[in-house]
Amino acid sequence: LQLFTCNSNPGLAREIADHIGVPLGDAEVGKFSDGEIHVKLDESVRGSDVYVIQSTCHPVNQHLMELLVMVDALKRASARTINVVIPYYGYARQDRKTRARDPITAKLVANLIETAGADRVITMDLHANQIQGFFDIPVDHLLGVPILADYFIKKKLDDVVVVSPDHGGVIRARKLAERLEAPIAIIDKRRPEPNVAEVMNIVGDVKGKKAIIIDDIIDTAGTITLAANALLEQGAKEVYACCTHPVFSGPAIDRIRQANIKEMVVTNTIPLPKEKQLDKIKVLSVASLIGEAI
Amino acid sequence: LQLFTCNSNPGLAREIADHIGVPLGDAEVGKFSDGEIHVKLDESVRGSDVYVIQSTCHPVNQHLMELLVMVDALKRASARTINVVIPYYGYARQDRKTRARDPITAKLVANLIETAGADRVITMDLHANQIQGFFDIPVDHLLGVPILADYFIKKKLDDVVVVSPDHGGVIRARKLAERLEAPIAIIDKRRPEPNVAEVMNIVGDVKGKKAIIIDDIIDTAGTITLAANALLEQGAKEVYACCTHPVFSGPAIDRIRQANIKEMVVTNTIPLPKEKQLDKIKVLSVASLIGEAI
Ligand SMILES: Nc1ncnc2c1ncn2[C@@H]1O[C@H](COP(=O)(O)O)[C@@H](O)[C@H]1O
Ligand SMILES: Nc1ncnc2c1ncn2[C@@H]1O[C@H](COP(=O)(O)O)[C@@H](O)[C@H]1O
Repeated sequence: LQLFTCNSNPGLAREIADHIGVPLGDAEVGKFSDGEIHVKLDESVRGSDVYVIQSTCHPVNQHLMELLVMVDALKRASARTINVVIPYYGYARQDRKTRARDPITAKLVANLIETAGADRVITMDLHANQIQGFFDIPVDHLLGVPILADYFIKKKLDDVVVVSPDHGGVIRARKLAERLEAPIAIIDKRRPEPNVAEVMNIVGDVKGKKAIIIDDIIDTAGTITLAANALLEQGAKEVYACCTHPVFSGPAIDRIRQANIKEMVVTNTIPLPKEKQLDKIKVLSVASLIGEAI
Repeated sequence: LQLFTCNSNPGLAREIADHIGVPLGDAEVGKFSDGEIHVKLDESVRGSDVYVIQSTCHPVNQHLMELLVMVDALKRASARTINVVIPYYGYARQDRKTRARDPITAKLVANLIETAGADRVITMDLHANQIQGFFDIPVDHLLGVPILADYFIKKKLDDVVVVSPDHGGVIRARKLAERLEAPIAIIDKRRPEPNVAEVMNIVGDVKGKKAIIIDDIIDTAGTITLAANALLEQGAKEVYACCTHPVFSGPAIDRIRQANIKEMVVTNTIPLPKEKQLDKIKVLSVASLIGEAI
């Protein structure tokens, strides 16, 4: 078993390596002067089962291409199996045609990864479970809920309600609620355009409770901050938010800073650069979860 | 026939559209807040033969992904055929394993483009002719030499010698030399010892002549400026340089500015941003050449 990483999440890669007790393989993943990705494997992988760790987070096109070129290099270097570990699978939100003539990038990227030569995928909290079926190779689909739940259990919050910010997230919210032995509520919202959130109607009882909103991805944090306000207006006592993938693009950090959210709990599938680290953001590690899956 | 462009070279796309008398199709190619590519086709392409114009130049990973997502959208919108016009085909220089465990990105990218759903490729001056064979779909391979030759013929330079900057470029140099009815010379680069600067040895007679160096790609312009000096030392009267693809990364523009090169003649397969436009750089258009091929 050999473990390699590209450049999206070297910290998590090192943690995973420590967890399974295998050092990270010797490889350079860089750029030529013109920006083309350049991969140099400095150790043999012939006949080996190789794992490559790479989240396809921002800058997504570069990180995706690093992964594809790495897989190409491993394939041509006669690795026995190439297992790609994609803690955050980008391009997942275009997983169906919502309008005529939409691309389906979640499927396109699955095809690209297979074409490059991957034999198996390990990933976490895909935006839709259906994306597993976009691959013709085995997909191990890990969930962040147990990690998030453990954190909140240790916090010993009383009188909790778990809130799904949309109908698509109810199953995830239910899983967290079961572990916390709490009821759920659902926010019934309508979004007119991408990256714009809007009207929030709450289904379920939140009055006097500590609300924990759970989502798979928090991107611009528009939905989550509006949801927090709506919950407080409906009488919630405190609002927590959690997600597996802190994309945190555009105005996200400003919104989180200003939002009426007591704590934002996320995982390290996507690393947070210094300027995105706030006191109210708590980062949990998925290294042991992924380590077990390898 | 419908014509679309992504964002790498909209100027050339408009010129091609003008040349063949077909307007550019209505489409948006942009980014979501997190940097993921977003394509919106604003007109039907059902049953149509569609051409997409996109050079995979800097930022190469973004431009490649724009092309792939566009092709995916066209495929799912039931275009009859999808013809990708890639005036500059990036990732071409890794076209073989020069060291153990190298990736072969020229082949990887060919596979990615086919996987996305392209039916045919129109491209220009591939770094190696063998890259045509990396595709299992038809490839129309256009050459810049006639355009460059016409320019130099109109200049009416006398006593010209055409110079190939390396052995790989001799066939291209020969083609230009034939059109200019000129002899050729070849620069024979040698590194006497590791970590010792390359020696430029000139095979052929350049004394008292006007030398025209021709290459497919000029990237950092290191080779070309050293070659120009070597030619002048050997008694060449003036040095011109030309290429199809002005990649011009890193120190290229500073080097060209300072080099003993009278004129640098390139084509618009890669657009030159304002800060890369110098008086001594002459840009020729490939629009009519590509227009004829469509
Ligand atoms: N990277 C992205 N950023 C923002 N919106 C996106 C992104 N990718 C896809 N979308 C849009 O998000 C919507 C799907 O989100 P959802 O309903 O949560 O599955 C679709 O309308 C997509 O066009
Ligand atoms: N984008 C790039 N920039 C600089 N060098 C590259 C690039 N892509 C590939 N190469 C290297 O260029 C060499 C091939 O160039 P050539 O001998 O001119 O075909 C190989 O050693 C490659 O590793």
